[in-house]
Amino acid sequence: MKIIRSVKEMKNWTYEIRQEGGTVGFVPTMGFLHEGHLSLVRESTSKCNHTVVSIFVNAKQFGPNEDLDTYPIDFEGDKKQLESLNVDVLFYPSHEEIYPEGHATFVSVEELSGRLCGKSRPGFFRGVTTVVIKLFNIVKPDIAFFGEKDRQQLGVIKKMVTDLNLDLSIKGMPIIRNSDGLALSSRNDYLNKEDRDSSLSLSKALNKAKLMFAEGETSAKVIKGEMTKIIEKEKNTRIDYISLSHPENFKEMEKAVSYSLVALAVFVGKTRLIDNCILGSR
Amino acid sequence: MKIIRSVKEMKNWTYEIRQEGGTVGFVPTMGFLHEGHLSLVRESTSKCNHTVVSIFVNAKQFGPNEDLDTYPIDFEGDKKQLESLNVDVLFYPSHEEIYPEGHATFVSVEELSGRLCGKSRPGFFRGVTTVVIKLFNIVKPDIAFFGEKDRQQLGVIKKMVTDLNLDLSIKGMPIIRNSDGLALSSRNDYLNKEDRDSSLSLSKALNKAKLMFAEGETSAKVIKGEMTKIIEKEKNTRIDYISLSHPENFKEMEKAVSYSLVALAVFVGKTRLIDNCILGSR
Repeated sequence: MKIIRSVKEMKNWTYEIRQEGGTVGFVPTMGFLHEGHLSLVRESTSKCNHTVVSIFVNAKQFGPNEDLDTYPIDFEGDKKQLESLNVDVLFYPSHEEIYPEGHATFVSVEELSGRLCGKSRPGFFRGVTTVVIKLFNIVKPDIAFFGEKDRQQLGVIKKMVTDLNLDLSIKGMPIIRNSDGLALSSRNDYLNKEDRDSSLSLSKALNKAKLMFAEGETSAKVIKGEMTKIIEKEKNTRIDYISLSHPENFKEMEKAVSYSLVALAVFVGKTRLIDNCILGSR
Repeated sequence: MKIIRSVKEMKNWTYEIRQEGGTVGFVPTMGFLHEGHLSLVRESTSKCNHTVVSIFVNAKQFGPNEDLDTYPIDFEGDKKQLESLNVDVLFYPSHEEIYPEGHATFVSVEELSGRLCGKSRPGFFRGVTTVVIKLFNIVKPDIAFFGEKDRQQLGVIKKMVTDLNLDLSIKGMPIIRNSDGLALSSRNDYLNKEDRDSSLSLSKALNKAKLMFAEGETSAKVIKGEMTKIIEKEKNTRIDYISLSHPENFKEMEKAVSYSLVALAVFVGKTRLIDNCILGSR
């Protein structure tokens, strides 16, 4: 596995590969890899001739009071895992390499980015879309893989790709969970034992929503009310949002239908966790 | 000359050309072509194996009280001129083709876009950079050509290309003027006889600035003061801005130096005209 740190070298690699032909799969990450990331990498190596994984903790998507400074890092561990999965290139640029002094250009997807997570994290999606279009332009993949845990991110990126006429496909991959239901996230590492217990309320609340819908309940208000109860019963939880929305434009829906997205963000202690499910799916 | 109206067909053409090899030059325009545009096209056909010219009146770069509805059009005339210059493709998409319903993604270059023209035309550069990145992604040129009359636009686009790691070069070409000094612009077509006379004050004011600087004057205030007098002497003129700034970041400078940009925007009657020069150049 080649480790590339400069934009120029990454572009050169892509250029060479393009001359030879063959497809390039791309998995952009912020590192501290878990099975969720690795499932994307496996999908890429199985579908594409070459796979590039990037590790870049993107400062532009963190708010001033968020966890940029404490975001977990384990470069050596990540490297080993990626090597074992036959990744071709690990792209690991510095902040300055991606955002040289004077960087001033931003991409934003309006409306979509202001809903759900965008409401409580202003500037978050603008940071995401800006770094992602840069990475796409540098790596030039045929397919880029994103996890469905960050479903709004996935939707916003798909919209950007369509709106800006980019030539790649975006593939969303299912959420990977611990056996007890907690969706994998690098931020789970922040949880102490007590908070780890409380964190199970997110997936429990989603399961409750699914069950209620399966049993005929369609009122978003009633469903969200039950979910709220499940979360609030646990220690140290503070709901950021619980939402029942359209899965592509994230507009709130009053009546649940079989494709509705149920999404939530909950602070457990100081850690903000997110999770979601589509109603009527497994 | 092929006339292409759909994004898909344009992308297919580019794809085919890329398979064959050879370079693609691109001149994006809003039509109603004059010698300024044609100088860009000639440069493209002389430097590149293939040349694509687009005609698209980009609604997103017009403000609510601007001249979108009256912007001059002469498709048949434009077509003839481009044919005679051996252009390969005229890309002539509809509004809906570029901005399908629900389009929500915008690119903005901050700071630079808020100065000079950006101050009086909020949203203008955001509209420009959004359509330009889309056109770049659709046409995928090796070189794109822009006129120096819109020098801030040229600077903003160059900055976007750098910041978003796009793979093309941007080439600025000199302002083309009438024999009496008026910089060519599609909007000159709006001027009645009286306003046409007054419009000469823009280039006169720039020449005065050059002369003053050549004779040793370096105070921006003094230079701009003399320019103001020249403009205000003429009938029906209203100064939008007169600026002496850094030619790349467009920050105002108090002291003129040999690369300073002198730029101005003036309403002559209802028509807003712009012009500029670099001090110390011919």
